[in-house]
Amino acid sequence: MSNSSWFTEAHEASGSSIGFRTRRLLHEEKTRFQNIEIHETSDWGNLMVIDGCIMLTSRDNFLYHEMMAHPALFTHARPANVAIIGGGDCGTLREVLRHPEVGQAVQVEIDERVTRLAERYFPELCEANADPRARLLFEDGIRYMADCAPDSLDVVIVDSTDPVGPAEGLFNAAFYASCFRALGQGGILVQQSESPIAHLDLIRSMRAAMRKAGFGALHTLTFPQPCYPTGWWSCTMARKGAGLSDFREDAAQARPFATRYYNAGIHRGALSPPEFMRSLDD
Amino acid sequence: MSNSSWFTEAHEASGSSIGFRTRRLLHEEKTRFQNIEIHETSDWGNLMVIDGCIMLTSRDNFLYHEMMAHPALFTHARPANVAIIGGGDCGTLREVLRHPEVGQAVQVEIDERVTRLAERYFPELCEANADPRARLLFEDGIRYMADCAPDSLDVVIVDSTDPVGPAEGLFNAAFYASCFRALGQGGILVQQSESPIAHLDLIRSMRAAMRKAGFGALHTLTFPQPCYPTGWWSCTMARKGAGLSDFREDAAQARPFATRYYNAGIHRGALSPPEFMRSLDD
Repeated sequence: MSNSSWFTEAHEASGSSIGFRTRRLLHEEKTRFQNIEIHETSDWGNLMVIDGCIMLTSRDNFLYHEMMAHPALFTHARPANVAIIGGGDCGTLREVLRHPEVGQAVQVEIDERVTRLAERYFPELCEANADPRARLLFEDGIRYMADCAPDSLDVVIVDSTDPVGPAEGLFNAAFYASCFRALGQGGILVQQSESPIAHLDLIRSMRAAMRKAGFGALHTLTFPQPCYPTGWWSCTMARKGAGLSDFREDAAQARPFATRYYNAGIHRGALSPPEFMRSLDD
Repeated sequence: MSNSSWFTEAHEASGSSIGFRTRRLLHEEKTRFQNIEIHETSDWGNLMVIDGCIMLTSRDNFLYHEMMAHPALFTHARPANVAIIGGGDCGTLREVLRHPEVGQAVQVEIDERVTRLAERYFPELCEANADPRARLLFEDGIRYMADCAPDSLDVVIVDSTDPVGPAEGLFNAAFYASCFRALGQGGILVQQSESPIAHLDLIRSMRAAMRKAGFGALHTLTFPQPCYPTGWWSCTMARKGAGLSDFREDAAQARPFATRYYNAGIHRGALSPPEFMRSLDD
């Protein structure tokens, strides 16, 4: 193909790389927080890159966004109040707002430019931004959670970049303590937790910090994600209270919205960890 | 890191690429059938490349090999006779021979050099080659299956390269008809079936050809595989007779051998397809 080159992310920590064939650079800017690029690819739609790390493509983001939203929301008995920390591309917000039980969903993204660029280059992810239940804030999520009224949230979704740079403070016990306090009894924290095969130590330390903050049940779910290092990703759910192994399976089956990856069987399957991850639960 | 470069496979058909950081080229040769390279990587052990396509790494091949062997073998009631077509690295053979029910496992690899190089650079995969139940043949798998005695096999595992070059003839109705004839009633064919997100059309046409050959039940299982295009892979099981949704779950749970990915929960989970793949079963 003429006019094509490749954008490749070399993930030094795992010694592996992932790339996509690109047609052109649509946008590049240095914001107050980070460097953002948007590329047009040949086969994956648009591609967003932050500080050299691939954030999403139009084609495969459904895997991540559905798994960040639906397992937690179908586990909580009545998810009325949801906060998303990060998530500036608005894809998680869109999935959250598909649930009719949700009364308010606040998205707290530190970098407004991520959302403005998503509106332009990933408009399908932003189609729920005008929903009256949506509230978009552009401020520090760590501070937001620290100031949050106790027992005011049902689900907190931490949809952040890797634990370096602006997102570093989202992976420690102090932040988890804020989340724990802000959640009501039975409330669920869910956080993206990197690659099962490359970052098992990180997952282990996140889980230890979550436990230390008081969360009574933990579960790490894995799912495919072609555009992230190793192509395999995870999120970790932590519950204020007990029990993450059951969910509203009938509601998941009868959900009044379309999905492309998630369904009740996928949720049930994701509750059974690969053999090498069973030791996490010891 | 000094002395490092990257081996990258650009997968033109999907416009995506995967690479690994390498330390040195350990071996390269042109065999009668193909070009084989072995690289030493920084984080993934050794890496085998055939005709530019990544075949396996020491670190992540367990995902593929376990999923090619165990779901089929725990579905068949008494898998005594097993044939592996391709599979020259011997990793699938090793997993098959972990099952005490297996009386004979024949591996039919067209290129003996693949096995000789696996013995040298992936010795852990070849540790069952001296098992008296193992029979290693180096000949054409298409011819082997065509000449196979009817009703003589319980499980056929097609562990091949992509459907171009030497493996092309393993993806069509004539080959599936040979497999069907060679299998006894209730027998299972399982074949690697590429990436769910990049090759859904191929999966659909493989399934149609399998049905045409007489197979009564089909199921495509997906699993992560970092070293293959898109990091997400699949195998398709086809049964001579009915039923692939149940398996010997108690036996899988009580299996007398260690695995790293497969377990009964993973098997059960893999029987529930992602939402976008449910249409395959229509």
